[in-house]
Amino acid sequence: MREQGLEVVQTREPGGTRIGDQIRQVVHDVKNEEMSSRAELLLYSASRAQLVSQLIRPALAAGKIVLCDRYADSTLAYQGYGRGLDLDALKLVTQFATGGLQPNLTLLLDLDVEKGLSRRIEGEEEMNRLDLEAISFHKRVRAGYHQLLGAEPARWVLIDADREITAVQQAIQQAILKRLTIND
Amino acid sequence: MREQGLEVVQTREPGGTRIGDQIRQVVHDVKNEEMSSRAELLLYSASRAQLVSQLIRPALAAGKIVLCDRYADSTLAYQGYGRGLDLDALKLVTQFATGGLQPNLTLLLDLDVEKGLSRRIEGEEEMNRLDLEAISFHKRVRAGYHQLLGAEPARWVLIDADREITAVQQAIQQAILKRLTIND
Repeated sequence: MREQGLEVVQTREPGGTRIGDQIRQVVHDVKNEEMSSRAELLLYSASRAQLVSQLIRPALAAGKIVLCDRYADSTLAYQGYGRGLDLDALKLVTQFATGGLQPNLTLLLDLDVEKGLSRRIEGEEEMNRLDLEAISFHKRVRAGYHQLLGAEPARWVLIDADREITAVQQAIQQAILKRLTIND
Repeated sequence: MREQGLEVVQTREPGGTRIGDQIRQVVHDVKNEEMSSRAELLLYSASRAQLVSQLIRPALAAGKIVLCDRYADSTLAYQGYGRGLDLDALKLVTQFATGGLQPNLTLLLDLDVEKGLSRRIEGEEEMNRLDLEAISFHKRVRAGYHQLLGAEPARWVLIDADREITAVQQAIQQAILKRLTIND
């Protein structure tokens, strides 16, 4: 996108702002094992609310493209399908946190749960509180993502992540270029 | 209440649990001046969700009395009437955080805003991010509390706090004893 002359802002969740990074520490700290599912959801939502108001909305208003590493669908997948919290309640809280802001395109990097976890373990980043959940949890999360994709196929693109990194990159590039062309 | 042989658990918000205290640090830190109103509300709600699930519900289930220094009405007063966030949205988020748990009795220690702030300044506790708001903000908060009290007069008791501490204590004791007698 940058090669095409577009201005791109990258974000990550939870975090991505000074306040969001403080929230990230609390929500990802593996010592906080007694955290309730509702508190967890509200912390992710607080971090997202700060990100939307401080970074995403101003960037969109300035005509930039915003590339988010996780957004509201992760809440539905992890706290809804994974933890079993009521999906309608999650949607209301998410609606409040984001003011209803939705992505134009969502990429799902899809991979078998066991393979995904082993990449995480071999990777450089530290394991967080959610990475340590049981395989059954991660399977519910993955199935949840597929449900979300199925409900809104026009917004989502499934990227098969069970390939070499260059092939995954290429698939992502194609999906984004296609969408930019359609929007032209 | 303890003299009457009742078991009483005291809580404060935000905080009151190990995780809640971490959230308290973020939400009260005067350096976090760029915090969005929505993120602020979600952080208070996260702290409350943790408190309800970890401390308040187990205490009530064990037949104890729970005495909360602030609860959901403070959210409506500060983030609703004070910050101007939509009250219906706040009620939905609060409903999610608490699972609908409401107090049986709510005491409003009512005091002229300027007097209240000067007590805060002279007091021992550090000023937090909300204490530093303008007088007009605190006036909206106080008016909000009065609205909440007016809407549910059976649950609330107004305590005139513009008196010596012993007189305030006595009024609180009377209000609680009266409610305990009614519930007997």
